[in-house]
Amino acid sequence: MTHPLRKHIEEIISVTDEEFTFILSHFTTIKKRKHQYIVQEGEIVNKEYWIIKGCLKSYFVDNAGKEHILQFGMENWWITDYESFVNQTKSKTSIDCIEDSELLYITFENRDKLTQKMHKMERFWAKKSKIGRISLQNRILSLLKNSTKEKYDLLLEQYPKLFQRVPKKMIASYLGVSRETLSRLNE
Amino acid sequence: MTHPLRKHIEEIISVTDEEFTFILSHFTTIKKRKHQYIVQEGEIVNKEYWIIKGCLKSYFVDNAGKEHILQFGMENWWITDYESFVNQTKSKTSIDCIEDSELLYITFENRDKLTQKMHKMERFWAKKSKIGRISLQNRILSLLKNSTKEKYDLLLEQYPKLFQRVPKKMIASYLGVSRETLSRLNE
Repeated sequence: MTHPLRKHIEEIISVTDEEFTFILSHFTTIKKRKHQYIVQEGEIVNKEYWIIKGCLKSYFVDNAGKEHILQFGMENWWITDYESFVNQTKSKTSIDCIEDSELLYITFENRDKLTQKMHKMERFWAKKSKIGRISLQNRILSLLKNSTKEKYDLLLEQYPKLFQRVPKKMIASYLGVSRETLSRLNE
Repeated sequence: MTHPLRKHIEEIISVTDEEFTFILSHFTTIKKRKHQYIVQEGEIVNKEYWIIKGCLKSYFVDNAGKEHILQFGMENWWITDYESFVNQTKSKTSIDCIEDSELLYITFENRDKLTQKMHKMERFWAKKSKIGRISLQNRILSLLKNSTKEKYDLLLEQYPKLFQRVPKKMIASYLGVSRETLSRLNE
């Protein structure tokens, strides 16, 4: 059976069996239970994660103690505090598991080594970074422009499976509305 | 005198005279007057711009006809509709000049050629893309979390020169508030 990470990488670049074995040797597998953290606010993040199985959320807490969800992550997604990982500064966000999850991670050093040795993995991550940037840009357009109903419909269209897996209060937190407002949208 | 683009590139990678001449041969210089467009909503964007001199804004118009500013651009910044440029889809934003501006642009094809031939330019743009992604992530955190006053202070801290160059109504549009609200912040 083809490794899921290989399938994922081959959506963008082709790799031989030897190359994939070499790529995979830079990764480590971990399992986390529901509610466990992979990133905590304030730490310097040294790992980027790829989700084999499970569901996670990236979020921050404002001065009033309110949680704001920046991003959800599910199978085949990359997740980390990107600013902390790239700049080696303190993380502004936390990431924890909404379900029991199985992850692969690559450290900052290993990612650097791998891209130095395999130019096409640099191309792979450059492409992934572009996709991530575009999705953030669309989130900003949506935050500035859309009504709550439009934001909700966009989320539903982008991630139809999310709504079966994630509690309503988290959807509300992602959209920046109360649970009551969210309930009224569905009436 | 060192070319400003060379200075900019050498903040991240070193290039020889020959390499820089080769890089520059992939770019074209253009001049635009205040109020002229470089990107219009609905077109497929084939160029990425680097600002030699001037000031531009990237924005979109909502269904009610209200303009929302996504990003400002000044000297040494890259600007385009990134989603349209990368995916060759219709642009969701427009970009026009707030001042008379002098720009360099590189086409999609030339950028692809250049990165194929010079691995380190791929590294350069990968780094730039990471920086762009981080700045968008911080914009989302700010939109979700900060009060108008905090957003204003953050913008002032990030781009102190912007406030002398850009009309107050555009600052208000970037922050998503009315001009009256903005005036009250400065009292």
